[in-house]
Amino acid sequence: MKIAVLPGDGIGTEIVAEAVRVLNVLDLPFEMEEALVGGAAYEAHGHPLPPATLKLAQASDAILFGAVGDWKYDKLDRPLRPEQAILGLRKALGLFANFRPALCYEQLTHASSLKPELVAGLDILIIRELTGDIYFGQPRGRRIATDGHFPGAEEAFDTMRYSKPEIERIAHVAFQAARKRSKKVTSVDKANVLETFQFWKDVVTEVHKEYPDVELEHMYVDNAAMQLVKAPKKFDVLFTGNMFGDILSDEAAMLTGSIGMLPSASLNAKGQGLYEPSHGSAPDIAGKGIANPLATILSAAMMLRFSLQQPEAADRIESAVRAVLAAGYRTADIWSEGTQKVSTREMGDAVVAAI
Amino acid sequence: MKIAVLPGDGIGTEIVAEAVRVLNVLDLPFEMEEALVGGAAYEAHGHPLPPATLKLAQASDAILFGAVGDWKYDKLDRPLRPEQAILGLRKALGLFANFRPALCYEQLTHASSLKPELVAGLDILIIRELTGDIYFGQPRGRRIATDGHFPGAEEAFDTMRYSKPEIERIAHVAFQAARKRSKKVTSVDKANVLETFQFWKDVVTEVHKEYPDVELEHMYVDNAAMQLVKAPKKFDVLFTGNMFGDILSDEAAMLTGSIGMLPSASLNAKGQGLYEPSHGSAPDIAGKGIANPLATILSAAMMLRFSLQQPEAADRIESAVRAVLAAGYRTADIWSEGTQKVSTREMGDAVVAAI
Ligand SMILES: CC(C)[C@H](C(=O)O)[C@@H](O)C(=O)O
Ligand SMILES: CC(C)[C@H](C(=O)O)[C@@H](O)C(=O)O
Repeated sequence: MKIAVLPGDGIGTEIVAEAVRVLNVLDLPFEMEEALVGGAAYEAHGHPLPPATLKLAQASDAILFGAVGDWKYDKLDRPLRPEQAILGLRKALGLFANFRPALCYEQLTHASSLKPELVAGLDILIIRELTGDIYFGQPRGRRIATDGHFPGAEEAFDTMRYSKPEIERIAHVAFQAARKRSKKVTSVDKANVLETFQFWKDVVTEVHKEYPDVELEHMYVDNAAMQLVKAPKKFDVLFTGNMFGDILSDEAAMLTGSIGMLPSASLNAKGQGLYEPSHGSAPDIAGKGIANPLATILSAAMMLRFSLQQPEAADRIESAVRAVLAAGYRTADIWSEGTQKVSTREMGDAVVAAI
Repeated sequence: MKIAVLPGDGIGTEIVAEAVRVLNVLDLPFEMEEALVGGAAYEAHGHPLPPATLKLAQASDAILFGAVGDWKYDKLDRPLRPEQAILGLRKALGLFANFRPALCYEQLTHASSLKPELVAGLDILIIRELTGDIYFGQPRGRRIATDGHFPGAEEAFDTMRYSKPEIERIAHVAFQAARKRSKKVTSVDKANVLETFQFWKDVVTEVHKEYPDVELEHMYVDNAAMQLVKAPKKFDVLFTGNMFGDILSDEAAMLTGSIGMLPSASLNAKGQGLYEPSHGSAPDIAGKGIANPLATILSAAMMLRFSLQQPEAADRIESAVRAVLAAGYRTADIWSEGTQKVSTREMGDAVVAAI
């Protein structure tokens, strides 16, 4: 089993280092190989996703990814900016199924912006389609408008699109995931305005016939953004397209108050996957040794479960994380009166010790 | 001055009736004419926006709109569904500038899902472009894919697009609105992924040069969805496109806990406007006389200020609403222990009395 380790930028290197230590202590037969990605790769090789990094990713069973991005790359042309690496990996590897749990940890309930009774015990699984929609749809670009409000004016445009098999395969992922949970899927669309999402709704309804034991609810994206705030616990599997998923998964993550704790997985049809924390590269605290490595450590657990067929090792990591939280260890982002503030490294130590 | 009154469906008729009573008591020289819209119009004339209704709207200085929609129309073909009326009015009248205040009323702070300290005194103005973007962009439809992940498969597609003059005119609206407030605009885009929103960002940056006294910040839409939850008071004017505005304005409205209180205005270049509550038609409580008419009454105040040049009358309504809240009157949606529960009609009575 081969793992590509891509720490990236900002706090990426610090948090991935701890996840790697945790993986090493499990004493499993895998090989890890590290490569540059994002801004770090741009600095060294002039591109955020150099050919060698892409090749390593393609040749691996799983990718452990840190985070990419920094303000200092904002002025670069778009194809050279750090986040193109993550889009490039999704596309090249066909990582169409994004799993983003939004979980509120018992000990961190108070850290949520929401009233504790609204988030205590919250456990949503967001399934986001990750290789289609307006993210990759062609054509796109700039041109002179020939119709619309201002014919003759300069305009920019993008294409939103989903084909039937693209919707079908992610719908199967969502329904199958729901079978392992509360058997309820909320499919989020904008069928009242968009052709693409009327089609989404139609195809999801069709695929649902194969899952009569799973309850399916359809919800407009604007309403979903509201219901997440009003009553997040009403959701179980929240299932949607790439663009809406980008927005709703971040909203849901922030609602939990546990954003430094939330892992994610992005899988392709062969089970290869990219695993990364839900949070970003946080350049403002990079290099200070205070970042929370738990989201990355929990991403490594997802990797063991989804791509490396090591569910017991995944359980061990997840139990260890629960144990360090119960023991009162907290990095600065989740610290509160009465708990022990620890560094990135010390948090890694605590998890390693708990394993 | 002529006002088209379009109550629509569900609670629409009840809440608009109270706003009309409030307008009448002001004793101003305007004429009001009512017409059917939405499901009600479909039932009577076979179309949610019949020609007579559209003609009345076009011939008026302002439109007082209730709400449209009901589950029972879900099975109709899209062009016949109630919400097409609102899209049709926006398009036909060119109502490109949508103003959506997200205000947390002092007496209703406790009704928010968020902790009181995060929302007390919250006052965001959302400016959403309303006639462009993927809402109206052509081409759109279904076809057989010739490229992408599954060439040969059936697919659906939509076109996101913005031209330079479309972005410019709404950017001017946002900067000018900011001048009357805290002089800060947050422009929300997804420039890291979409050509359309890289262009948006470029054009907004260009227009900003004419407003050196206003601070401009750019934020990605996923981050905006998070920051609204984390620290909503950091926003003042939140400015964005049609699709992102749909999602973020609903999220922000729900955050305030005052959704039954929030008005909206949609203006065209001539100052004609459509005024409607931010909430929907709530078919579940329609006909019970318990809906909150205050968002519609406050929409009438916005109408007086923006389209009818009656700022003093607008002030009178807004003061009256504050007075009835201070006096403890509450419809069911905002009721809490120690306040007096009133019906839709009684709330209208209270506002009329306070004027
Ligand atoms: C970095 C960016 C391109 C990316 C996205 O929009 O998908 C990120 O926001 C995410 O959600 O993983
Ligand atoms: C009814 C619907 C078409 C509309 C929209 O998406 O714009 C509504 O959600 C709104 O925000 O006014």
